[in-house]
Amino acid sequence: MAKEETAKTKEAKKPAAKAVRHVVPFPEPQNVAIENVWPAVDDGRFSIRREPGDVVEVKADVFRHSHEKIAADVLYRRLGEKKWRRAPMSFVDNDLWAGSFVVDEIGYWEYTVEARTVSPEDVPSRADRVYELRVDPVYARCCAWYEMFPRSQGKVPGKSATWDDCRERLDDVCAMGFDTVYLTPIHPIGQTNKKGPNNSLHARPEDPGCPYAVGNTKGGWGDGGSKDLERTLGTPEQFRAFMAEAKRRGLRMALDVALNCSPDHPHVQTHPEWYFHEADGSIKFAENPPKKYEDIYPYDYFNENWKALWAEIRDMILHWVDQGFVCFRIDNPHTKPFQFWEWLIREVKLIHPEVVFLAEAFTRPKIMKRLAKVGFDMSYTYFTWRNEKQELEEYLRELTGEPLAETMRGIFFPTTPDIHPKILWNAPREAFMVRLMLAATTNSAYGMYNGFELCENEPFPGGIKDELANSEKYDFKVRDWNKPGNIKAFVARLNAIRRENPAMAEYTNLRFHYADNPQITCYSKRDAKTGNTMLFVVNLDPYHIQSAWCSFDMEALGLPSWGAWQVEDQLTGERYTWEGNRAFVKLDPKKSVGHALRIL
Amino acid sequence: MAKEETAKTKEAKKPAAKAVRHVVPFPEPQNVAIENVWPAVDDGRFSIRREPGDVVEVKADVFRHSHEKIAADVLYRRLGEKKWRRAPMSFVDNDLWAGSFVVDEIGYWEYTVEARTVSPEDVPSRADRVYELRVDPVYARCCAWYEMFPRSQGKVPGKSATWDDCRERLDDVCAMGFDTVYLTPIHPIGQTNKKGPNNSLHARPEDPGCPYAVGNTKGGWGDGGSKDLERTLGTPEQFRAFMAEAKRRGLRMALDVALNCSPDHPHVQTHPEWYFHEADGSIKFAENPPKKYEDIYPYDYFNENWKALWAEIRDMILHWVDQGFVCFRIDNPHTKPFQFWEWLIREVKLIHPEVVFLAEAFTRPKIMKRLAKVGFDMSYTYFTWRNEKQELEEYLRELTGEPLAETMRGIFFPTTPDIHPKILWNAPREAFMVRLMLAATTNSAYGMYNGFELCENEPFPGGIKDELANSEKYDFKVRDWNKPGNIKAFVARLNAIRRENPAMAEYTNLRFHYADNPQITCYSKRDAKTGNTMLFVVNLDPYHIQSAWCSFDMEALGLPSWGAWQVEDQLTGERYTWEGNRAFVKLDPKKSVGHALRIL
Repeated sequence: MAKEETAKTKEAKKPAAKAVRHVVPFPEPQNVAIENVWPAVDDGRFSIRREPGDVVEVKADVFRHSHEKIAADVLYRRLGEKKWRRAPMSFVDNDLWAGSFVVDEIGYWEYTVEARTVSPEDVPSRADRVYELRVDPVYARCCAWYEMFPRSQGKVPGKSATWDDCRERLDDVCAMGFDTVYLTPIHPIGQTNKKGPNNSLHARPEDPGCPYAVGNTKGGWGDGGSKDLERTLGTPEQFRAFMAEAKRRGLRMALDVALNCSPDHPHVQTHPEWYFHEADGSIKFAENPPKKYEDIYPYDYFNENWKALWAEIRDMILHWVDQGFVCFRIDNPHTKPFQFWEWLIREVKLIHPEVVFLAEAFTRPKIMKRLAKVGFDMSYTYFTWRNEKQELEEYLRELTGEPLAETMRGIFFPTTPDIHPKILWNAPREAFMVRLMLAATTNSAYGMYNGFELCENEPFPGGIKDELANSEKYDFKVRDWNKPGNIKAFVARLNAIRRENPAMAEYTNLRFHYADNPQITCYSKRDAKTGNTMLFVVNLDPYHIQSAWCSFDMEALGLPSWGAWQVEDQLTGERYTWEGNRAFVKLDPKKSVGHALRIL
Repeated sequence: MAKEETAKTKEAKKPAAKAVRHVVPFPEPQNVAIENVWPAVDDGRFSIRREPGDVVEVKADVFRHSHEKIAADVLYRRLGEKKWRRAPMSFVDNDLWAGSFVVDEIGYWEYTVEARTVSPEDVPSRADRVYELRVDPVYARCCAWYEMFPRSQGKVPGKSATWDDCRERLDDVCAMGFDTVYLTPIHPIGQTNKKGPNNSLHARPEDPGCPYAVGNTKGGWGDGGSKDLERTLGTPEQFRAFMAEAKRRGLRMALDVALNCSPDHPHVQTHPEWYFHEADGSIKFAENPPKKYEDIYPYDYFNENWKALWAEIRDMILHWVDQGFVCFRIDNPHTKPFQFWEWLIREVKLIHPEVVFLAEAFTRPKIMKRLAKVGFDMSYTYFTWRNEKQELEEYLRELTGEPLAETMRGIFFPTTPDIHPKILWNAPREAFMVRLMLAATTNSAYGMYNGFELCENEPFPGGIKDELANSEKYDFKVRDWNKPGNIKAFVARLNAIRRENPAMAEYTNLRFHYADNPQITCYSKRDAKTGNTMLFVVNLDPYHIQSAWCSFDMEALGLPSWGAWQVEDQLTGERYTWEGNRAFVKLDPKKSVGHALRIL
């Protein structure tokens, strides 16, 4: 009641009502209200994502005052088209209406909802805003990347491999069934403050340095910057022959983009204003606490001459597009402004809608989500650290469900040059098989870092960080790619299963089923159009035999809830006949880390 | 894989990339991202609602790229003020920040979120939009209305009461403890096609007609329209004496606004273009299927001369504000355009922010919600039809919770002139007491229609609709306001409990507790500032003794989970000592339909 007194006191104090009349503008007449247009990301601030061939379902609450009959349409068009195309919406329930249209070309689209009174016919009412839809290439959702460290593809210890060595490795990449080759940075490597083996601060002259310290005016064939090639990898002609061979084999090429400059990068000389400066005028090196990168200078994206810097980076991307790269894996995008990415990605995609950007951000969830919203096609995820059944299933449900999947497509890498998770420290090959099977069969997009097929498992000295020992990031490395114990056949079989089953190409069709053992996870993927359905049962424990009773969501499998059904393991060829919605499964990791069952 | 082929085909077809560069405008630099500003209704399309003295808590996801420290403020101001006021936000968790400010005056306010990098200091980043907040009078949330049918307040059968009779009834209204008197329409009543008793189509000349058929050029003191008074209720001087007496007693006055014209309304002659027309040029009468209203013409809100109509209706409201009405109960707002309400309510409130609008809409949920969003302060609800425990508790949780309570304040009327629910057909006084206790103690805003205190229970002839028999809407009615069996003392006690306990003034503080009998509902309201806590246990069965074990949410009651506590029934004065979080309650409706317990 005290509040009411306050209100009264205030009212008494206010000046006598002025004779101000008609201060609110009259509206544009609209008889129909349109609310809650869906799908929409942040009420239309960011575009939703689809792939060619997708049916875009649009829903909205549509209603008017009084009882007159109404009709509603989805309006849609390619960005830049003047005329809207129309798809009729139909009434669902409780003032909800729904309609759909098919997107057939990659690039930017727009959609909105329009409604009108049918009788008497009136002006069409429009939703408050136009929503954007970006249709990305199918390979932004369905792909298998092989991450190649170019200088480690050779045979001579203590020496860099060349593009010819890389070209020879394409046999292996194709035999394993990958469709994308992703190269870590290929530019001249800085020498000033270069890192030695195991990231040590003092390198010997013969150490090659880290390729993420980009730029060396003396190390390339041109200006030594981000459009140039590291000289020790071979000539530009060799590079072009490598790219041509990859293209001939139908492989997509992905390039690692590290927007860092070594102190030897030509921009440091030509554009010192593009960097941060210490009080004494010297250029600041990079930090990403607790990590320090003494060998690289970050750009200042809002320096006095920032527009020239942004244009230069765009031109660098377009240069590599012209050289044959279609995917760009961006190193640490979360240390650059979101606005920069929103501008850059749109700028590139308006010219080359086939180009795909992958965000290498391992940071806080909302930052990763924002990077997806501002335009990245794909994103690294926390998959590497999700090992227990419950955390794995929860995370996968979040990633592949609403609202996250409207903008973000996760790609699963079991390891990276920066991350060798504890679960693989000194672990047996079965542990590598479990993690690869999870990556390749839960997700339509996954990747494998070279060396994983050899089950490289030695942790960083002293276990002080989650990296491999003697990382090729700071050293030359020569491997026996056919070393006994390798899992290349298993990798090849997984990739074959992915290709042969349309259900594996979809991202949001993952469904989990109940298994009564915390070491056994059970999930399925189904393609509604073809009916193709894959059911997986994986033993998360690479050391012991585990068994479980599984209870299946039969609707998710496209099966009746009773009767017998048959499955065929695509890894072993074995067939099983199961009855009703339960089955007993026993997995010995020495024989099989999991079942990859096609429902017959 | 079929999709991928489609994509490739399309890519092949597209023209060679044009050398278009730099087509995306450079942004205004902002280092900090601000997302999910809360509270917000439809992403800020509509204003949120508060009352004076309220602390407005604002939350947002605030973060930037890289690792620099950031700070954030809530910006707020009265609408029209140039300068923003600031309240600092603090970090909560997972990039969520929160801050708050107090609103001290009714009217329109604005708020948004601003954030900046602390070191190096940079330009402030702003949220994408400014959000609106409307601070309404406290009586938009906390009030007890008495609905008075003016012509039925007299003593002479077959004759209309006068304003003098109404004035005499104010003793009763005040004795029962109501704070608002709400009058059904008081304007000249149309005679053409007027309705007879029980809504019959053929009235006798001596029948008074329905006051919702507004306007009679021969029936008032002026033009006979919506600014005029029905002549049979007495002179304008008598009316003013009634209004003055109500004001002297501190009662707020509410007026029923029926935007319908009888064929005798002066506008029918002066503005025939304001109505819908049949093909033959005659004016259409109103329909609200399945109901037909042959005695009234609806306005066409988008007629060729619509702006003049809207201005006329606004002037009519302002006229009655000048006469002393502060609340307007709008009849059937859902049959008029939402845009009209949004315009009208804003127009009136910018001049008279103390004016409150109540939507009498019993229609589909999304339409009722939209009326609240476009500006109505209060709304009728489905309370009348929520009688079973589960449906009652579910509905009350929805009404008083997020997101609905951001815009909609429900007011509970157990009955109205149009609705006499089945649960009260031929029901005993205990049934009336149960429904009134539920209305008055679950909700801070409630109202009672005159005659309810006399437990009028006779259904419409043949039970063909949920209305009272012999409704005063179509007839003269004389009542004995002190008829034996009345529940006036119970009404007075409930209103006293509402006044004496600050917890009863709040709308969103309702919490339900578990009771193991479906006929017993248990709920509490607590005022955090004073600690005042009321606990209610109500027997929904007016016919039988019911008992239950109640299990209390002790935190909601502000009590520790163990130990003894004492309560005092504010209806009977009895005290009980309870132990821990469970208690046994037995209610005999003949003695008490419920407990209204203050925690001591």
